[in-house]
Amino acid sequence: MRPVITAFEASPDRGEGLARDMRVRWALEEVAAAYDVRLVSFEEMKEPAYKRLHPFGQIPTYQDGDLELFESGAIVLHIAQQHSGLLPKDGQGRASALAWLFAALNTVEPPILEREQARFYERDKLWYDDRIPLLDDRIRARLNDLSRWLGEDEWLGDTFSVGDLMMVTVLRRLAGAGVLEDFPNLIAYVARGVARPAYKRAFADQLAVFNGAGPTRHNTAR
Amino acid sequence: MRPVITAFEASPDRGEGLARDMRVRWALEEVAAAYDVRLVSFEEMKEPAYKRLHPFGQIPTYQDGDLELFESGAIVLHIAQQHSGLLPKDGQGRASALAWLFAALNTVEPPILEREQARFYERDKLWYDDRIPLLDDRIRARLNDLSRWLGEDEWLGDTFSVGDLMMVTVLRRLAGAGVLEDFPNLIAYVARGVARPAYKRAFADQLAVFNGAGPTRHNTAR
Repeated sequence: MRPVITAFEASPDRGEGLARDMRVRWALEEVAAAYDVRLVSFEEMKEPAYKRLHPFGQIPTYQDGDLELFESGAIVLHIAQQHSGLLPKDGQGRASALAWLFAALNTVEPPILEREQARFYERDKLWYDDRIPLLDDRIRARLNDLSRWLGEDEWLGDTFSVGDLMMVTVLRRLAGAGVLEDFPNLIAYVARGVARPAYKRAFADQLAVFNGAGPTRHNTAR
Repeated sequence: MRPVITAFEASPDRGEGLARDMRVRWALEEVAAAYDVRLVSFEEMKEPAYKRLHPFGQIPTYQDGDLELFESGAIVLHIAQQHSGLLPKDGQGRASALAWLFAALNTVEPPILEREQARFYERDKLWYDDRIPLLDDRIRARLNDLSRWLGEDEWLGDTFSVGDLMMVTVLRRLAGAGVLEDFPNLIAYVARGVARPAYKRAFADQLAVFNGAGPTRHNTAR
């Protein structure tokens, strides 16, 4: 039996791969695990039945037999622990991958998300134009540190890990913001991530959903 | 040899236990692991030597022999994996604990942090008073879901886990905001968390640092 994940029936990003199911799809493709997708509407996500699976009514969720899981970070870590390829085997390598996974979600993503929220919810406010530069500065402070750490290395640790997978998806959310462009090594880092065959397969599958092909091409093992 | 964590030499919360070393202290106390603390100044945290330990120049860090780790979420999870007591042994219990750990950090904390940032950085702005209600609404939306999930249960899963530990520390950051007060079951949940003997020991130790007693009473095993 294959694990089943949930994804937006109609992704608000119009197939750009910014929704959080992309992280899980990518992880599953990296470890060559076949899976199925159940598409959910915004209405369904608000219903009590769905909130028993995801208390905050979001995507993605993950079900594997009796096991149920929510939060993209937890799902990706679970996949990395079940299969080889996303978590180094040595103690320090594994610890670093964990650190970068949490850093992506709790240190780098929050200011990026704050900028997104401002664009969604405060675009019509008088203060919008004055606040954006403040938000960009907070993002830039994180990217400065990240860029300095990465330097000319390929990945944040010695090999590609669950930490890179998460960080690349977080940095992709800056597309169009004009902030990442100040950091050529981070641009190259994101480009390396999205050039991976597993990323490309995951991206094509979520795009197929948006293009109306439905969740039919969602499995790997090809 | 004991693990060493870093903490603020002079915590900006004046000993309220809101800094992120508190999470790690609490986890170490729950599993009865002795540890040492190295206090760092804001100046030291910005230096390249420190940023090799923590790329974003923050506290806490964790060193255990050769193993180095940063990000409070990663450190707490590492501790939970090394010792028994914070992660249920059964598959679903463990998965749920992981989900709640990430939910605390990536779903519940970001809007709370955004409110804190506004108070720190935008208090003098013309828009401050108009924005706070918007931020409170975003927090309330999360707390509504969290409160509904918890109901009259004691903890988020069947037993106290790393997910509860993190969620309680995140909710404590709302002290004084007047938002948590709308959710009596969450108030009671936080009260249960801070009543745990391990929490009290950790809290006393970080307070002793603020009160100038230095990092001498930081170890457990008493």
